[in-house]
Amino acid sequence: MAPTGQQVDEGKIQMNDHFFQNIEPIQYRYYNPKQKILGKTMEEHLRISVCAWHTFCWEGPDMFGQPLFHRPWMKSPEEKIKALFEFIQKLGVKYFTFHDVDLAPAGVSLEKITDLIGEEMKRTGIELLWGTANLTGHPRYMAGAMTNPDPAVFAVAAAQVKAAIDATHRLKGHNYVLWNGRDGYETLLNTDLRQEMDQYGRFLSLLVDYKHKIGFKGALLIEPKPREPMKHQYDFDCATTSAFLRKYGLEKEFQFNIESNHATLAGHTFSHEIAYALANDAFGSLDANDGDLLLGWDTDQFPMDLSQYTHGLYLILQHGGFKTGGCNLDAKVRRQSIDLQDLFYGHINGIETLAKALLHAAALIEKNDLQSFMKKRYEHWHSGLGQDILHKKMNFEQIANYVQTHRLDPKPHSGRQEMLEGMLNL
Amino acid sequence: MAPTGQQVDEGKIQMNDHFFQNIEPIQYRYYNPKQKILGKTMEEHLRISVCAWHTFCWEGPDMFGQPLFHRPWMKSPEEKIKALFEFIQKLGVKYFTFHDVDLAPAGVSLEKITDLIGEEMKRTGIELLWGTANLTGHPRYMAGAMTNPDPAVFAVAAAQVKAAIDATHRLKGHNYVLWNGRDGYETLLNTDLRQEMDQYGRFLSLLVDYKHKIGFKGALLIEPKPREPMKHQYDFDCATTSAFLRKYGLEKEFQFNIESNHATLAGHTFSHEIAYALANDAFGSLDANDGDLLLGWDTDQFPMDLSQYTHGLYLILQHGGFKTGGCNLDAKVRRQSIDLQDLFYGHINGIETLAKALLHAAALIEKNDLQSFMKKRYEHWHSGLGQDILHKKMNFEQIANYVQTHRLDPKPHSGRQEMLEGMLNL
Amino acid sequence: MAPTGQQVDEGKIQMNDHFFQNIEPIQYRYYNPKQKILGKTMEEHLRISVCAWHTFCWEGPDMFGQPLFHRPWMKSPEEKIKALFEFIQKLGVKYFTFHDVDLAPAGVSLEKITDLIGEEMKRTGIELLWGTANLTGHPRYMAGAMTNPDPAVFAVAAAQVKAAIDATHRLKGHNYVLWNGRDGYETLLNTDLRQEMDQYGRFLSLLVDYKHKIGFKGALLIEPKPREPMKHQYDFDCATTSAFLRKYGLEKEFQFNIESNHATLAGHTFSHEIAYALANDAFGSLDANDGDLLLGWDTDQFPMDLSQYTHGLYLILQHGGFKTGGCNLDAKVRRQSIDLQDLFYGHINGIETLAKALLHAAALIEKNDLQSFMKKRYEHWHSGLGQDILHKKMNFEQIANYVQTHRLDPKPHSGRQEMLEGMLNL
Amino acid sequence: MAPTGQQVDEGKIQMNDHFFQNIEPIQYRYYNPKQKILGKTMEEHLRISVCAWHTFCWEGPDMFGQPLFHRPWMKSPEEKIKALFEFIQKLGVKYFTFHDVDLAPAGVSLEKITDLIGEEMKRTGIELLWGTANLTGHPRYMAGAMTNPDPAVFAVAAAQVKAAIDATHRLKGHNYVLWNGRDGYETLLNTDLRQEMDQYGRFLSLLVDYKHKIGFKGALLIEPKPREPMKHQYDFDCATTSAFLRKYGLEKEFQFNIESNHATLAGHTFSHEIAYALANDAFGSLDANDGDLLLGWDTDQFPMDLSQYTHGLYLILQHGGFKTGGCNLDAKVRRQSIDLQDLFYGHINGIETLAKALLHAAALIEKNDLQSFMKKRYEHWHSGLGQDILHKKMNFEQIANYVQTHRLDPKPHSGRQEMLEGMLNL
Repeated sequence: MAPTGQQVDEGKIQMNDHFFQNIEPIQYRYYNPKQKILGKTMEEHLRISVCAWHTFCWEGPDMFGQPLFHRPWMKSPEEKIKALFEFIQKLGVKYFTFHDVDLAPAGVSLEKITDLIGEEMKRTGIELLWGTANLTGHPRYMAGAMTNPDPAVFAVAAAQVKAAIDATHRLKGHNYVLWNGRDGYETLLNTDLRQEMDQYGRFLSLLVDYKHKIGFKGALLIEPKPREPMKHQYDFDCATTSAFLRKYGLEKEFQFNIESNHATLAGHTFSHEIAYALANDAFGSLDANDGDLLLGWDTDQFPMDLSQYTHGLYLILQHGGFKTGGCNLDAKVRRQSIDLQDLFYGHINGIETLAKALLHAAALIEKNDLQSFMKKRYEHWHSGLGQDILHKKMNFEQIANYVQTHRLDPKPHSGRQEMLEGMLNL
Repeated sequence: MAPTGQQVDEGKIQMNDHFFQNIEPIQYRYYNPKQKILGKTMEEHLRISVCAWHTFCWEGPDMFGQPLFHRPWMKSPEEKIKALFEFIQKLGVKYFTFHDVDLAPAGVSLEKITDLIGEEMKRTGIELLWGTANLTGHPRYMAGAMTNPDPAVFAVAAAQVKAAIDATHRLKGHNYVLWNGRDGYETLLNTDLRQEMDQYGRFLSLLVDYKHKIGFKGALLIEPKPREPMKHQYDFDCATTSAFLRKYGLEKEFQFNIESNHATLAGHTFSHEIAYALANDAFGSLDANDGDLLLGWDTDQFPMDLSQYTHGLYLILQHGGFKTGGCNLDAKVRRQSIDLQDLFYGHINGIETLAKALLHAAALIEKNDLQSFMKKRYEHWHSGLGQDILHKKMNFEQIANYVQTHRLDPKPHSGRQEMLEGMLNL
Repeated sequence: MAPTGQQVDEGKIQMNDHFFQNIEPIQYRYYNPKQKILGKTMEEHLRISVCAWHTFCWEGPDMFGQPLFHRPWMKSPEEKIKALFEFIQKLGVKYFTFHDVDLAPAGVSLEKITDLIGEEMKRTGIELLWGTANLTGHPRYMAGAMTNPDPAVFAVAAAQVKAAIDATHRLKGHNYVLWNGRDGYETLLNTDLRQEMDQYGRFLSLLVDYKHKIGFKGALLIEPKPREPMKHQYDFDCATTSAFLRKYGLEKEFQFNIESNHATLAGHTFSHEIAYALANDAFGSLDANDGDLLLGWDTDQFPMDLSQYTHGLYLILQHGGFKTGGCNLDAKVRRQSIDLQDLFYGHINGIETLAKALLHAAALIEKNDLQSFMKKRYEHWHSGLGQDILHKKMNFEQIANYVQTHRLDPKPHSGRQEMLEGMLNL
Repeated sequence: MAPTGQQVDEGKIQMNDHFFQNIEPIQYRYYNPKQKILGKTMEEHLRISVCAWHTFCWEGPDMFGQPLFHRPWMKSPEEKIKALFEFIQKLGVKYFTFHDVDLAPAGVSLEKITDLIGEEMKRTGIELLWGTANLTGHPRYMAGAMTNPDPAVFAVAAAQVKAAIDATHRLKGHNYVLWNGRDGYETLLNTDLRQEMDQYGRFLSLLVDYKHKIGFKGALLIEPKPREPMKHQYDFDCATTSAFLRKYGLEKEFQFNIESNHATLAGHTFSHEIAYALANDAFGSLDANDGDLLLGWDTDQFPMDLSQYTHGLYLILQHGGFKTGGCNLDAKVRRQSIDLQDLFYGHINGIETLAKALLHAAALIEKNDLQSFMKKRYEHWHSGLGQDILHKKMNFEQIANYVQTHRLDPKPHSGRQEMLEGMLNL
């Protein structure tokens, strides 16, 4: 019951010109990076990442209120970078993620910033989980980036993405991510879906070619979201994006970066999106946050839904764990959390939840109850009639005859949902 | 302002042993079947169909209340068929749709019933828009039909679908529809998504083969719905189903039967689903109804949302109109509408809305404002840079160079949403 | 079918230093201010108002994108006021609404601005439908205004509201409105509901006393909204606010300003909120806009849902029409509508929809079908048993005895929903 | 990690003619009825109840599927009662709840059934948490019970409720509950809200008089739900119902029976409804279940959301715990859970979750961190300016003057949401 990260109390945290100087490295209750679980350390399993935008760039405005965060590092890109790495060191995790504009705003050279970031990475041992380009904020993208009715906007977006993947490549990023929040529509009345999808397909093909040309070894990820800021986004969810990728023959080149809050906005559980991606050999990485299912927008809260994360990590572990991906804490403190220590409370919540969920998931794997139930449930598909059907040994008429000949009248079997839910949650 | 179908007033409708004997054929305010619009009659455009299940089989129970409709034709399949055709004749439309169990419940021979239906079709000239099999009601299907963990259930479902498409073929149905409401899951904890999707893919392939073997010329349609009765259904929406079909190489064999209420439950407008299907060469037919967007379940109300139907029919007309599909009134009266005349009021509302929407949509086509706006909006993709990009004449670096060389700084252009909405709605 | 406001085409609108100099006063297709309907002119019925904030202050940012509207009047309060009145004159309506900060931002004297506004009102004959204070934007209000944990914030809010109602009073505003978007909570974990409600009750009582003291004759209005920007707002909907007002004995002092988009976010139809307010003698005014029921946030689109506005105005007309209230177009163009003419298209859509809805509603009133159906439906409550029950002539046991003695077995009667929907919509 | 209730495994549960003969009384992991917590036993705190309807009466149909539960006790009321008490004994809890029709269907004397129930209660020591009448299922109630347009339906409902409260009184029920699921509307077009609310107010007043007359000492509870089966229900949520009760002067006579799934359907957290009821001195009892926030209907799942139940019980404990109310497991197994042991798994999940939540909540109470944070947050309302405002010592002008004189410019303080969420959840 004791709150974790107790060393981060109000008395102890004192902010100075090096931002978090008096904060001791966080000691966690559940997160123990070097603890071995199923053959790997907790750190190797979770690959937890801090994102640059929410904590280091966002100033707290909402649609009805002014900015109100006065973070001491907002003045310059250099200060932001310094604060970001200092913060990650205090947390004791290993990865970060960023958009080009997070650290290199308009007028600042991304290349120069990349050098600075590289130095900090070298100094601290922190790695880049993924980089990305912000194609949503600038007015030129108001009607989409690659799906814009103006090919000049497509071209500018291509140049921007090229620079961003170049930077990611230089920084040895483990992945490059696309979230194309404006690529969708506000109204179908002015939108040619077929045309815009063709544009999008072209863009992704160009990116794939370029990735191979420069020898970027990381994965290309797409992050689905159904809507917001647009009424509809082309990357609505994993299945929608999968349809699109298959249409353009790109399904082997992209994996999904799945965000919990985006999943629920699309009407799915986080676990569903993970399971769908895994079942289609397209799972990549997680944007680990929580949405509020009673609110209709992206709240990006720190992940605390233990049940969802246990289930999600269980599925991922079952399929061999993360490869290039990890758990990116794409989350922000609430607007009223104006103090620096709130940033710690939020991240600690997220890290502890992930750690606790990993422990639960690993225990489920070890007990093997869920897997063995599942195996037994489908066992008849692995012999006799089941195999004959799947391996095309029977046509429709033969199956119908079989039903008649054998007077098939299969009885239902309990799905045991309550027993399984108890296994997962209690 | 005058309510339509005025001849259907309470005084005039008298029910007798031929069900609607004293009702005159309906005279509409907007629906004029023989009126020529854009080269075809209204009847040819809309291909309106009455469904057998809601009006002729449903007895009015809900999750909290007992059945309370005492329709005089409920006693026997023969009476139901008689009532169905009598009703359609009074309405003056041309098509019907049915599930196997609607007219041939357990214990009744579907073949014999098919004969009876065929006789009524011959007598009246009414045609079968589509047939289907109910794979949701029987206990054996509680955990899915083709995606059931038990291959015996798959086999029984195959036999049932074979019989249903045989009947549809004999009755010269214009389409055969699948709505697989149990094929999804209640909990991921007991569900192997990859396995179940493979089963589903196998089933559809078997059906395609059989269709070609028997020479059924109609289209195979799939009807997406996101959930209810299950937590998740594999045919969540058009895009999800499209991903599935593409995975199994079936995308050219199936078209979508789009239901308005299912679209909105999936978080989309009806128009979106139609536009998506059209943009993927997969539009088939409509289940024309209205949902209540403030309620989270399938209300199947008669279509009255003029704006959505105008937009939907506009999109369909732009792409050449219905081929094998049509407007199936998959709608039911509210539970408190216990009188026979309520059935007429509901259907008249639907038919009038479709007719009015067709008139509006045709006027939009003729004015050409929406199309010409759209054409102009994307015109730069049809020359110069746009064409070079789309036709693979430039790679990522060349595009980035082009941006630099030409100092591209594209300015945003108004999307004119309000102007276009005024065109559609006022 | 012709789009309305045709004179507002792209060729004709030329923007110059007096903002809309070359635009002719709008000629409408449906809105004819002087047309008599049920004894009043259309203008007198609808009392249409333009709001200052969306069109004259908002610069187009969203949570993922930068400001991008470059309106020529943004530089100074004086220019904004000039543009506002010029715009309303072009539209040919009679009212406006504003928040204090819309026209008198921080550092500008509200009194001086009030003088300027007063001069424009005198010059143009345009009146103030209502004034209000913005208690949501400033950082001090991040945790609520009157319900803030800090009484100093309550005090500052009181001073601000006092100044705003003073200004409204000087400008002969017909109403004063409260929308307290931050008065609610982000998390219950730090919120004392009882304490905060008591604070809110105190504030409203203070305002009522002050209103009477200064002799403000307009109505005090409260505008319900369920959430956004907060997780929960104390004025969730009319019923919730009514509970609150009754608790503090304030139910006779406040009426509701009902916004369509807020109604739907609370899970209600616009008509429901209107009907609830009317049934509780608390209907005041409308914020006439449309939400998008598939999006979970306040989209504030121009009203185009003819069916809802017809029903809403029908209910209002039945109860004698607007008194001090009217139809405030609390709506904004979409973010991609960056041109000045888009502002006209949006407002024209709204005005035409209201006009068309008024014509439909008046026709329904004149035909009297809906009313007479309703009267008949409840007629048994106006005599015999119904009256005995309502007028407390029977207790529970007597009623139970009556049931037994008379062997009461009442039969259900059709609710005729489809017939009534046809009357409303076709 | 071990699943609880391990003795309920498939091998061990054997069903015989006494239903659960071979099942041992359940041993729990967390639920220990006699364990003392904050001065009371766990059993005394939670007052867990099993409901008669879901487990003993429902046969598993849904809107798309046939009944499929073949419970051995369905044949007669006597068998149902026997099974109900046997089941509760195996679970080792103390309370049950029932509707009249659950155990006394049409044609069976409620009085006689009451005798049978009374005997079982005497034999087992199990008590009645509450009784109620089903006013939703019978066709006569299709348009509402007390709010029906026909006063004869009101009268029949009164007679039914009289019999139900008589039975509850005889069985020494701790409460009598009303859930009036049909009292609302399907369409406003045929509904007179003012009239129907007056009817409802009359009914409740009659019930209150009768309760006092017969000397029933339990509480009268109302159970809010926003919709389903109706489009709108008059008891939408606690606040809506509170407005209603206050309008008719009944707010001291009724308390709320709050159901988690109903709360979320209304757009609220469970905790919100509990906190609202507590803040208005109207908290009564809980219908402890979980909804699925991604589904739009009442799923009535067994409670497993530990965070919500911890918070809810924390709030209730803070206010002194349950009085007459308790935790009624208003939950059902999923439709695919067709075996008798599934009933145990579901109930065990619910009971364990409640027990674990109670332990967490008690620990929070004992640590006192949340309370002391809250106390400090509002401390300024307990002295000086805060007290002067609340105790009406200042009017609006005096407050405004105070702001000016003291140059009040209050600074925002962090709401510490993340810290508090960590305290609750980790």
